[in-house]
Amino acid sequence: MTTETIRIIGIDPGLRRTGWGIIEVQGARLNYVASGLIVSESDDPLAVRLSVLFRGLGSVISAFEPLEAAVEETFVNDNAKATLKLGQARGIAMLAPAIAHVPVAEYTPNLIKKSVVGAGHAEKRQVQMMVQMLLPKAKFESADEADALAIAICHANHRGSPQALARRAAVGVTRVKAGQ
Amino acid sequence: MTTETIRIIGIDPGLRRTGWGIIEVQGARLNYVASGLIVSESDDPLAVRLSVLFRGLGSVISAFEPLEAAVEETFVNDNAKATLKLGQARGIAMLAPAIAHVPVAEYTPNLIKKSVVGAGHAEKRQVQMMVQMLLPKAKFESADEADALAIAICHANHRGSPQALARRAAVGVTRVKAGQ
Repeated sequence: MTTETIRIIGIDPGLRRTGWGIIEVQGARLNYVASGLIVSESDDPLAVRLSVLFRGLGSVISAFEPLEAAVEETFVNDNAKATLKLGQARGIAMLAPAIAHVPVAEYTPNLIKKSVVGAGHAEKRQVQMMVQMLLPKAKFESADEADALAIAICHANHRGSPQALARRAAVGVTRVKAGQ
Repeated sequence: MTTETIRIIGIDPGLRRTGWGIIEVQGARLNYVASGLIVSESDDPLAVRLSVLFRGLGSVISAFEPLEAAVEETFVNDNAKATLKLGQARGIAMLAPAIAHVPVAEYTPNLIKKSVVGAGHAEKRQVQMMVQMLLPKAKFESADEADALAIAICHANHRGSPQALARRAAVGVTRVKAGQ
Protein backbone atom coordinates (compact mmCIF):
# COMPACT_ATOMS: atom_id res chain seq x y z
CA MET A 1 0.00 0.00 0.00
CA THR A 2 1.41 3.38 -0.91
CA THR A 3 1.09 6.37 1.34
CA GLU A 4 -0.24 9.47 -0.36
CA THR A 5 1.75 12.68 -0.20
CA ILE A 6 -0.28 15.61 1.12
CA ARG A 7 0.83 19.17 0.64
CA ILE A 8 -0.20 21.54 3.45
CA ILE A 9 -0.07 25.32 3.75
CA GLY A 10 0.19 26.86 7.22
CA ILE A 11 -0.73 30.53 7.58
CA ASP A 12 0.14 32.87 10.45
CA PRO A 13 -2.07 35.88 9.73
CA GLY A 14 -1.35 39.50 10.59
CA LEU A 15 -2.40 42.77 9.00
CA ARG A 16 1.22 43.96 8.75
CA ARG A 17 3.01 40.62 8.27
CA THR A 18 1.46 37.30 7.27
CA GLY A 19 3.74 34.27 7.32
CA TRP A 20 3.08 31.25 5.13
CA GLY A 21 4.80 27.87 4.99
CA ILE A 22 4.28 24.84 2.78
CA ILE A 23 5.25 21.31 3.74
CA GLU A 24 4.59 17.83 2.44
CA VAL A 25 3.60 14.95 4.66
CA GLN A 26 3.94 11.34 3.61
CA GLY A 27 2.98 9.00 6.42
CA ALA A 28 5.18 10.15 9.30
CA ARG A 29 7.68 11.92 7.06
CA LEU A 30 7.66 15.72 6.75
CA ASN A 31 9.33 17.75 4.02
CA TYR A 32 9.84 21.47 3.67
CA VAL A 33 8.62 22.89 0.35
CA ALA A 34 8.63 26.70 0.67
CA SER A 35 7.86 29.57 3.01
CA GLY A 36 7.62 33.33 2.90
CA LEU A 37 6.13 36.54 4.18
CA ILE A 38 3.44 38.86 2.82
CA VAL A 39 3.94 42.41 4.04
CA SER A 40 1.47 45.27 3.68
CA GLU A 41 2.28 48.96 4.03
CA SER A 42 0.78 50.54 7.14
CA ASP A 43 0.35 53.83 5.21
CA ASP A 44 -2.06 52.21 2.75
CA PRO A 45 -5.84 52.19 3.30
CA LEU A 46 -7.14 49.08 5.04
CA ALA A 47 -8.96 47.82 1.92
CA VAL A 48 -5.71 47.99 -0.07
CA ARG A 49 -3.78 46.15 2.64
CA LEU A 50 -6.39 43.38 2.74
CA SER A 51 -6.22 43.11 -1.07
CA VAL A 52 -2.43 42.77 -0.93
CA LEU A 53 -2.81 39.94 1.57
CA PHE A 54 -5.57 38.24 -0.44
CA ARG A 55 -3.68 38.44 -3.74
CA GLY A 56 -0.43 37.35 -2.09
CA LEU A 57 -1.98 34.26 -0.53
CA GLY A 58 -3.86 33.54 -3.75
CA SER A 59 -0.60 33.55 -5.71
CA VAL A 60 1.10 31.24 -3.21
CA ILE A 61 -1.86 28.83 -3.30
CA SER A 62 -1.99 28.70 -7.11
CA ALA A 63 1.79 28.32 -7.33
CA PHE A 64 2.12 25.48 -4.80
CA GLU A 65 -1.36 23.93 -4.95
CA PRO A 66 -1.67 22.75 -1.35
CA LEU A 67 -4.43 20.19 -0.68
CA GLU A 68 -5.16 21.42 2.84
CA ALA A 69 -4.68 24.61 4.84
CA ALA A 70 -4.26 25.42 8.53
CA VAL A 71 -4.57 28.76 10.30
CA GLU A 72 -3.88 29.67 13.90
CA GLU A 73 -6.94 30.30 16.09
CA THR A 74 -5.79 33.71 17.04
CA PHE A 75 -5.05 34.57 20.61
CA VAL A 76 -7.75 36.98 21.74
CA ASN A 77 -5.97 39.61 23.76
CA ASP A 78 -7.18 42.54 25.85
CA ASN A 79 -6.63 45.13 23.14
CA ALA A 80 -9.89 45.28 21.17
CA LYS A 81 -8.40 47.46 18.42
CA ALA A 82 -5.58 44.96 17.83
CA THR A 83 -8.07 42.08 17.92
CA LEU A 84 -10.22 43.77 15.26
CA LYS A 85 -7.15 44.28 13.00
CA LEU A 86 -6.05 40.69 13.48
CA GLY A 87 -9.61 39.51 12.82
CA GLN A 88 -9.67 41.34 9.50
CA ALA A 89 -6.38 39.76 8.40
CA ARG A 90 -7.49 36.37 9.69
CA GLY A 91 -10.73 36.57 7.70
CA ILE A 92 -8.66 36.97 4.54
CA ALA A 93 -6.27 34.18 5.56
CA MET A 94 -9.21 31.78 5.88
CA LEU A 95 -10.98 33.01 2.75
CA ALA A 96 -8.02 32.72 0.35
CA PRO A 97 -7.70 28.90 0.61
CA ALA A 98 -11.46 28.36 1.02
CA ILE A 99 -12.39 29.98 -2.29
CA ALA A 100 -9.64 27.91 -3.95
CA HIS A 101 -11.50 24.83 -2.58
CA VAL A 102 -8.71 24.07 -0.11
CA PRO A 103 -10.27 23.05 3.23
CA VAL A 104 -9.09 25.10 6.20
CA ALA A 105 -8.41 23.72 9.69
CA GLU A 106 -7.93 25.86 12.79
CA TYR A 107 -5.63 25.16 15.73
CA THR A 108 -5.05 26.94 19.02
CA PRO A 109 -1.61 28.43 19.70
CA ASN A 110 -1.16 25.95 22.57
CA LEU A 111 -1.84 22.91 20.39
CA ILE A 112 0.55 24.25 17.72
CA LYS A 113 3.37 24.70 20.26
CA LYS A 114 2.63 21.30 21.77
CA SER A 115 2.83 19.66 18.32
CA VAL A 116 6.21 21.15 17.59
CA VAL A 117 7.97 21.61 20.93
CA GLY A 118 6.04 19.11 23.06
CA ALA A 119 4.83 21.78 25.52
CA GLY A 120 1.99 24.27 25.18
CA HIS A 121 3.89 27.22 26.60
CA ALA A 122 7.07 27.25 24.53
CA GLU A 123 8.91 30.44 23.65
CA LYS A 124 9.15 31.74 20.09
CA ARG A 125 12.82 30.79 19.86
CA GLN A 126 12.12 27.19 20.91
CA VAL A 127 9.46 26.93 18.21
CA GLN A 128 11.91 28.16 15.58
CA MET A 129 14.59 25.70 16.69
CA MET A 130 12.20 22.76 16.63
CA VAL A 131 10.77 23.74 13.22
CA GLN A 132 14.35 23.81 11.91
CA MET A 133 15.00 20.38 13.43
CA LEU A 134 11.77 18.82 12.08
CA LEU A 135 12.30 20.41 8.64
CA PRO A 136 16.09 20.41 8.17
CA LYS A 137 15.84 21.89 4.68
CA ALA A 138 13.68 24.80 5.85
CA LYS A 139 14.96 28.29 5.14
CA PHE A 140 13.13 31.00 7.01
CA GLU A 141 14.24 34.46 7.94
CA SER A 142 11.36 35.53 10.12
CA ALA A 143 9.47 34.27 13.18
CA ASP A 144 6.23 34.56 11.16
CA GLU A 145 7.49 32.03 8.58
CA ALA A 146 8.60 29.66 11.33
CA ASP A 147 5.19 30.01 13.00
CA ALA A 148 3.43 29.29 9.71
CA LEU A 149 5.54 26.14 9.27
CA ALA A 150 4.72 25.14 12.87
CA ILE A 151 1.00 25.50 12.05
CA ALA A 152 1.46 23.26 9.00
CA ILE A 153 3.32 20.68 11.12
CA CYS A 154 0.51 20.77 13.70
CA HIS A 155 -2.01 20.07 10.95
CA ALA A 156 0.14 17.21 9.62
CA ASN A 157 -0.11 15.65 13.10
CA HIS A 158 -3.83 16.26 13.62
CA ARG A 159 -5.38 16.14 10.16
CA GLY A 160 -6.68 12.61 10.74
CA SER A 161 -8.68 13.61 13.84
CA PRO A 162 -12.48 13.26 13.74
CA GLN A 163 -12.91 17.06 14.00
CA ALA A 164 -10.60 17.68 11.06
CA LEU A 165 -12.36 15.04 8.97
CA ALA A 166 -15.78 16.50 9.84
CA ARG A 167 -14.53 19.91 8.79
CA ARG A 168 -13.32 18.61 5.44
CA ALA A 169 -16.66 16.89 4.89
CA ALA A 170 -18.50 20.13 5.62
CA VAL A 171 -16.46 21.96 3.01
CA GLY A 172 -17.59 19.33 0.55
CA VAL A 173 -14.12 18.13 -0.28
CA THR A 174 -14.16 14.53 -1.37
CA ARG A 175 -10.44 13.85 -1.54
CA VAL A 176 -9.76 10.62 0.32
CA LYS A 177 -6.48 10.04 2.05
CA ALA A 178 -4.78 6.72 1.56
CA GLY A 179 -2.65 4.95 4.11
CA GLN A 180 -4.37 6.13 7.30
CA MET B 1 -23.10 71.58 -16.41
CA THR B 2 -24.51 68.14 -15.74
CA THR B 3 -24.16 66.43 -12.40
CA GLU B 4 -22.85 62.90 -12.59
CA THR B 5 -24.83 60.08 -11.02
CA ILE B 6 -22.78 58.04 -8.57
CA ARG B 7 -23.87 54.62 -7.41
CA ILE B 8 -22.81 53.72 -3.87
CA ILE B 9 -22.91 50.46 -1.93
CA GLY B 10 -23.13 50.60 1.86
CA ILE B 11 -22.20 47.46 3.79
CA ASP B 12 -23.02 46.62 7.41
CA PRO B 13 -20.80 43.60 8.06
CA GLY B 14 -21.51 40.74 10.43
CA LEU B 15 -20.46 37.08 10.41
CA ARG B 16 -24.06 35.92 10.76
CA ARG B 17 -25.88 38.70 8.88
CA THR B 18 -24.37 41.25 6.51
CA GLY B 19 -26.67 44.00 5.25
CA TRP B 20 -26.03 45.76 1.94
CA GLY B 21 -27.76 48.73 0.36
CA ILE B 22 -27.29 50.48 -2.96
CA ILE B 23 -28.26 54.07 -3.64
CA GLU B 24 -27.60 56.62 -6.35
CA VAL B 25 -26.60 60.19 -5.61
CA GLN B 26 -26.98 62.98 -8.15
CA GLY B 27 -26.04 66.31 -6.67
CA ALA B 28 -28.17 66.54 -3.53
CA ARG B 29 -30.69 63.97 -4.75
CA LEU B 30 -30.65 60.41 -3.36
CA ASN B 31 -32.35 57.40 -4.91
CA TYR B 32 -32.84 53.88 -3.59
CA VAL B 33 -31.65 51.17 -5.95
CA ALA B 34 -31.66 47.90 -3.99
CA SER B 35 -30.84 46.32 -0.64
CA GLY B 36 -30.58 42.90 0.92
CA LEU B 37 -29.06 40.59 3.45
CA ILE B 38 -26.39 37.90 3.21
CA VAL B 39 -26.86 35.25 5.88
CA SER B 40 -24.40 32.50 6.79
CA GLU B 41 -25.17 29.35 8.74
CA SER B 42 -23.64 29.29 12.21
CA ASP B 43 -23.20 25.50 11.92
CA ASP B 44 -20.84 25.87 8.97
CA PRO B 45 -17.05 26.12 9.40
CA LEU B 46 -15.76 29.68 9.57
CA ALA B 47 -13.98 29.42 6.21
CA VAL B 48 -17.24 28.41 4.54
CA ARG B 49 -19.15 31.27 6.18
CA LEU B 50 -16.54 33.78 5.02
CA SER B 51 -16.75 32.35 1.48
CA VAL B 52 -20.55 32.73 1.50
CA LEU B 53 -20.15 36.37 2.50
CA PHE B 54 -17.42 37.00 -0.08
CA ARG B 55 -19.33 35.37 -2.94
CA GLY B 56 -22.58 37.10 -1.90
CA LEU B 57 -21.01 40.54 -1.87
CA GLY B 58 -19.17 39.78 -5.10
CA SER B 59 -22.46 38.90 -6.82
CA VAL B 60 -24.14 42.09 -5.57
CA ILE B 61 -21.19 44.20 -6.74
CA SER B 62 -21.09 42.66 -10.21
CA ALA B 63 -24.88 42.90 -10.55
CA PHE B 64 -25.19 46.56 -9.51
CA GLU B 65 -21.72 47.88 -10.38
CA PRO B 66 -21.38 50.52 -7.66
CA LEU B 67 -18.63 53.10 -8.20
CA GLU B 68 -17.86 53.57 -4.53
CA ALA B 69 -18.31 51.56 -1.33
CA ALA B 70 -18.67 52.46 2.34
CA VAL B 71 -18.32 50.23 5.41
CA GLU B 72 -18.97 51.00 9.04
CA GLU B 73 -15.88 51.42 11.26
CA THR B 74 -17.01 48.76 13.62
CA PHE B 75 -17.65 49.56 17.22
CA VAL B 76 -14.98 47.87 19.26
CA ASN B 77 -16.73 46.39 22.25
CA ASP B 78 -15.48 44.69 25.40
CA ASN B 79 -16.06 41.17 24.10
CA ALA B 80 -12.82 40.16 22.37
CA LYS B 81 -14.33 37.00 20.87
CA ALA B 82 -17.17 39.00 19.27
CA THR B 83 -14.68 41.62 18.06
CA LEU B 84 -12.57 38.94 16.39
CA LYS B 85 -15.64 37.49 14.63
CA LEU B 86 -16.75 40.92 13.50
CA GLY B 87 -13.21 41.69 12.34
CA GLN B 88 -13.20 38.58 10.17
CA ALA B 89 -16.49 39.52 8.50
CA ARG B 90 -15.39 43.12 8.17
CA GLY B 91 -12.16 42.08 6.43
CA ILE B 92 -14.27 40.32 3.79
CA ALA B 93 -16.66 43.29 3.52
CA MET B 94 -13.73 45.58 2.71
CA LEU B 95 -11.99 43.09 0.42
CA ALA B 96 -14.96 42.29 -1.83
CA PRO B 97 -15.30 45.84 -3.26
CA ALA B 98 -11.53 46.50 -3.18
CA ILE B 99 -10.64 43.60 -5.45
CA ALA B 100 -13.42 44.72 -7.83
CA HIS B 101 -11.56 48.09 -7.96
CA VAL B 102 -14.33 49.84 -6.05
CA PRO B 103 -12.74 52.26 -3.53
CA VAL B 104 -13.88 51.70 0.07
CA ALA B 105 -14.52 54.49 2.59
CA GLU B 106 -14.97 53.91 6.33
CA TYR B 107 -17.22 55.87 8.69
CA THR B 108 -17.75 55.69 12.43
CA PRO B 109 -21.19 54.66 13.74
CA ASN B 110 -21.62 58.14 15.23
CA LEU B 111 -20.98 59.92 11.93
CA ILE B 112 -23.38 57.56 10.15
CA LYS B 113 -26.17 58.26 12.66
CA LYS B 114 -25.43 61.97 12.52
CA SER B 115 -25.67 61.93 8.71
CA VAL B 116 -29.05 60.27 8.75
CA VAL B 117 -30.75 61.33 11.97
CA GLY B 118 -28.82 64.50 12.76
CA ALA B 119 -27.57 63.19 16.11
CA GLY B 120 -24.73 60.80 16.91
CA HIS B 121 -26.61 58.76 19.47
CA ALA B 122 -29.81 57.85 17.66
CA GLU B 123 -31.65 54.60 18.29
CA LYS B 124 -31.94 51.87 15.69
CA ARG B 125 -35.61 52.62 15.08
CA GLN B 126 -34.90 56.32 14.45
CA VAL B 127 -32.26 55.36 11.88
CA GLN B 128 -34.76 53.11 10.09
CA MET B 129 -37.43 55.81 10.02
CA MET B 130 -35.05 58.43 8.65
CA VAL B 131 -33.65 56.06 6.02
CA GLN B 132 -37.24 55.42 4.89
CA MET B 133 -37.88 59.18 4.77
CA LEU B 134 -34.68 59.97 2.84
CA LEU B 135 -35.24 57.04 0.46
CA PRO B 136 -39.04 56.83 0.07
CA LYS B 137 -38.84 53.96 -2.41
CA ALA B 138 -36.66 51.86 -0.11
CA LYS B 139 -37.92 48.43 0.81
CA PHE B 140 -36.06 46.81 3.65
CA GLU B 141 -37.13 44.10 6.01
CA SER B 142 -34.22 44.10 8.42
CA ALA B 143 -32.31 46.57 10.59
CA ASP B 144 -29.10 45.43 8.86
CA GLU B 145 -30.37 46.56 5.47
CA ALA B 146 -31.48 49.91 6.91
CA ASP B 147 -28.05 50.32 8.51
CA ALA B 148 -26.33 49.52 5.21
CA LEU B 149 -28.46 52.16 3.46
CA ALA B 150 -27.59 54.63 6.25
CA ILE B 151 -23.89 53.94 5.63
CA ALA B 152 -24.38 54.61 1.91
CA ILE B 153 -26.24 57.88 2.69
CA CYS B 154 -23.41 58.92 5.01
CA HIS B 155 -20.92 58.33 2.21
CA ALA B 156 -23.09 60.33 -0.22
CA ASN B 157 -22.80 63.26 2.22
CA HIS B 158 -19.07 62.94 2.92
CA ARG B 159 -17.56 61.51 -0.26
CA GLY B 160 -16.26 64.94 -1.33
CA SER B 161 -14.25 65.41 1.86
CA PRO B 162 -10.43 65.66 1.58
CA GLN B 163 -10.01 62.38 3.48
CA ALA B 164 -12.34 60.53 1.16
CA LEU B 165 -10.59 61.95 -1.91
CA ALA B 166 -7.18 61.03 -0.51
CA ARG B 167 -8.43 57.51 0.05
CA ARG B 168 -9.68 57.19 -3.51
CA ALA B 169 -6.35 58.50 -4.79
CA ALA B 170 -4.50 55.91 -2.73
CA VAL B 171 -6.57 53.10 -4.26
CA GLY B 172 -5.44 54.37 -7.63
CA VAL B 173 -8.93 55.07 -8.89
CA THR B 174 -8.92 57.83 -11.48
CA ARG B 175 -12.65 58.36 -11.85
CA VAL B 176 -13.30 62.09 -11.62
CA LYS B 177 -16.56 63.38 -10.25
CA ALA B 178 -18.28 66.16 -12.16
CA GLY B 179 -20.36 68.90 -10.62
CA GLN B 180 -18.61 69.25 -7.29
